[in-house]
Amino acid sequence: MEEKQFVKEVADINENFAQWYTDVVIKTELVDYGPVKGTMVIRPYGYAIWENIQKDLDERFRKTGVKNAYFPMFIPESFLKKEAEHVEGFAPEVAVVTHAGGEKLAEPLIVRPTSETIIGHMYAKWLSSYRDLPILINQWANVVRWEKTTRPFLRTSEFLWQEGHTVHATEEEAMEETLRMLGVYKDFAEETLAIPVITGRKTEKEKFAGGLATFGMEAMMLDGKSLQAGTSHYFGQNFSKAFDIKFLDKDGKLKYGYSTSWGVSTRLIGAIIMAHGDQRGLVLPPKVAPVQVIIIPVAAHKGGVNEKAKEIEDMLVAAGIRANTDMRDMSPGRKFNEWEMKGVPLRVEIGPRDLEAGHAVIMRRDTLEKSTVPFGELLNRVVSLLETVQKDMLTLSRERRDKKIVHADSLDGILKGVDGKNFVKAGWCGCRECEDKVKEYAAATARVMCDEEGIPDRCAICGKPAKHNVIFARAY
Amino acid sequence: MEEKQFVKEVADINENFAQWYTDVVIKTELVDYGPVKGTMVIRPYGYAIWENIQKDLDERFRKTGVKNAYFPMFIPESFLKKEAEHVEGFAPEVAVVTHAGGEKLAEPLIVRPTSETIIGHMYAKWLSSYRDLPILINQWANVVRWEKTTRPFLRTSEFLWQEGHTVHATEEEAMEETLRMLGVYKDFAEETLAIPVITGRKTEKEKFAGGLATFGMEAMMLDGKSLQAGTSHYFGQNFSKAFDIKFLDKDGKLKYGYSTSWGVSTRLIGAIIMAHGDQRGLVLPPKVAPVQVIIIPVAAHKGGVNEKAKEIEDMLVAAGIRANTDMRDMSPGRKFNEWEMKGVPLRVEIGPRDLEAGHAVIMRRDTLEKSTVPFGELLNRVVSLLETVQKDMLTLSRERRDKKIVHADSLDGILKGVDGKNFVKAGWCGCRECEDKVKEYAAATARVMCDEEGIPDRCAICGKPAKHNVIFARAY
Repeated sequence: MEEKQFVKEVADINENFAQWYTDVVIKTELVDYGPVKGTMVIRPYGYAIWENIQKDLDERFRKTGVKNAYFPMFIPESFLKKEAEHVEGFAPEVAVVTHAGGEKLAEPLIVRPTSETIIGHMYAKWLSSYRDLPILINQWANVVRWEKTTRPFLRTSEFLWQEGHTVHATEEEAMEETLRMLGVYKDFAEETLAIPVITGRKTEKEKFAGGLATFGMEAMMLDGKSLQAGTSHYFGQNFSKAFDIKFLDKDGKLKYGYSTSWGVSTRLIGAIIMAHGDQRGLVLPPKVAPVQVIIIPVAAHKGGVNEKAKEIEDMLVAAGIRANTDMRDMSPGRKFNEWEMKGVPLRVEIGPRDLEAGHAVIMRRDTLEKSTVPFGELLNRVVSLLETVQKDMLTLSRERRDKKIVHADSLDGILKGVDGKNFVKAGWCGCRECEDKVKEYAAATARVMCDEEGIPDRCAICGKPAKHNVIFARAY
Repeated sequence: MEEKQFVKEVADINENFAQWYTDVVIKTELVDYGPVKGTMVIRPYGYAIWENIQKDLDERFRKTGVKNAYFPMFIPESFLKKEAEHVEGFAPEVAVVTHAGGEKLAEPLIVRPTSETIIGHMYAKWLSSYRDLPILINQWANVVRWEKTTRPFLRTSEFLWQEGHTVHATEEEAMEETLRMLGVYKDFAEETLAIPVITGRKTEKEKFAGGLATFGMEAMMLDGKSLQAGTSHYFGQNFSKAFDIKFLDKDGKLKYGYSTSWGVSTRLIGAIIMAHGDQRGLVLPPKVAPVQVIIIPVAAHKGGVNEKAKEIEDMLVAAGIRANTDMRDMSPGRKFNEWEMKGVPLRVEIGPRDLEAGHAVIMRRDTLEKSTVPFGELLNRVVSLLETVQKDMLTLSRERRDKKIVHADSLDGILKGVDGKNFVKAGWCGCRECEDKVKEYAAATARVMCDEEGIPDRCAICGKPAKHNVIFARAY
């Protein structure tokens, strides 16, 4: 009864996916709207996911030799203009500080939309010899991009992210770094978020403003649309020349460094929601779930039930599991619904009869399967189930996605494909005109190129010989 | 030889403490100046200290039930004006965004100098019943206060901090929270930073703009000046009334909540430097030192030395110690100097003769004492020495400080006291005029009140009966 009521609380996931998303993020208290248009408040339940993402990624970065630092948020307006493409790409969406300390500033300050310019300025100061290379620095920070259409996590005026910025002595090393970090992101997305991703190079149109090459990772959401979940950019010497990032090489010559940058953001939380959710709400991968196991006492007024629940919680917490007992004065049914909506991977139910029988009931959020587990085996079972859920979520997502990657050899084919909520692989001649046609005709964009899988003979749009194998999709 | 050269690299700590500070923070690569006046770049070595501070404090907050979240950085200008004292206190130093997305904004946006207003706005939306209380949320964020005179870590236009914001059903609970967090800060400062602090209530003049009571913790720096290292504010219903933070209480009545806020910032890094440093540079407490043990191979070209050094590093790292081996092609003397300046708590030296004799030499940074330790005892000795150094640093700081707290019963006595680089305890009648006189005459301010130690008979300034026992000091 109550469960049915509850299900109605969120829009139908198949009929109105966008509304379902909004309902779920608000009702599970992941996020709320800020008072300034386009801003979001990341509430404790959402922020805990971000903290788990940070911890995991930070360790992966650290293993590759990257260190964290913090650079100022205010960038002199003139910095932005030093790289021509960069300013063209970012100027339309920056927020500008014109007054501070009660006075008009001599030079307006840009609130960072990204930090290549200010970090480049500092690197130029710090770098002198090849011995200082590579420079491998990351920062966790807030950035601002003034967007017309916003949605919590997916596109907001201010968001949180990490941006790694590196400098290398050679083109090869910089390209290696660009691809290494793309690999780190892919492993992270699949191992930690249980989201399979397709990585590849972006087209000229879709690349970072001021870079030479952008590599992206694209994840398929439940509605067949693509979400760009992370990017890694190779800059060559573009920013080094604009900011004078030079070093004395082993051969005694003064050279410009080769730089890269790479980032992921709070968008990833949106990806988790839209890759794994269902009609009941969130389905969180155990590795990032703020609560991994929720313990719910049933008929808790009966002697010993609450005590046993607490005992189980203590046992799980001691083993490093994020477990919690819901002791609120509320019907178990309402609690079940609420924690299901919040996507907690495992629920442990315990009532008077379970207590007598010496077991508890565990429910998996991803499959909704229940099993009865003797108290003595509970810890081991929870540990192995968390691993199983994590693995199964990736497998399911991958199967679901792979069924929805189709090939097309015409513009109509592309349209039909994306209308059918698919990723569409198609040959492309490489010209901007054809890329724009796909956008106009099918409202889809080139997500990444996957030439290594083989290039079709013909461009699906103009019929000329194809130079690339492109994944077209509608995108967030 | 080299060491003497090195010592000259920084200004004399006794003769020019301010220059010594600047030399040390720049040369140890803790920080650098940003391109915009008053901003700083926190470099990896400095940021690693901040990360250790965050980890430690976060765990202390968590244990009191506090959760982290993230609120937008842009605050509508009108929000600031809702609390009269608040706007008066902060308006002169805010940075203002007037344009965004290529257009002039209808309402200018303030870059948060602190977040009581925007968080209050959200709490009003979230709070409905006494069941929702207390609200205990903290955020780690950047804030901006446009300052005329700036110094790295101590006072910068943008800095990093945490700000906790809580709401409670009653005055008593809110005051309890205010003092609980002050206690958390005190424990943290003493146990983790090895800095003894004096906590107490601030005078009306020194309290937070818009609050009812501010409690601060003050730390004595090596030059006898005080550094406000953290504050905890009790707001009563001031912000609740300004932002309509109401709840339905158990008795069925609609009531305003009682709120608090509390914060510490990257200033703490400045406190560590100025509380513990010496002529050679930084002396870092082991608990926050980015590198706890630096291993330096001597005559490393001799067989086995580098290998043994690395073996020791691996052993220490496996035990959870932040250890590193300096394998650079550079004289050991230069390495000794550099790591001493960087304040690494323990240095392990190992040369061919040590290798033969089966021992290594350990030097403590705080006392410069050396001891010879057989390889088999190395791990245990390092572990116990790190604990000893941490404890001894607090003891030394406390002894040093306690000798420099004097009493005065006249304005001249206060002047003489602060000129002698002391904290001065004196009776105070409680009037603003007398407080201002101390500022004019002795360039000192009331740091905190410590009435619980007993109140002198007379105000040291005007001679009228005293109402408070105040610590006066010059301050950062």
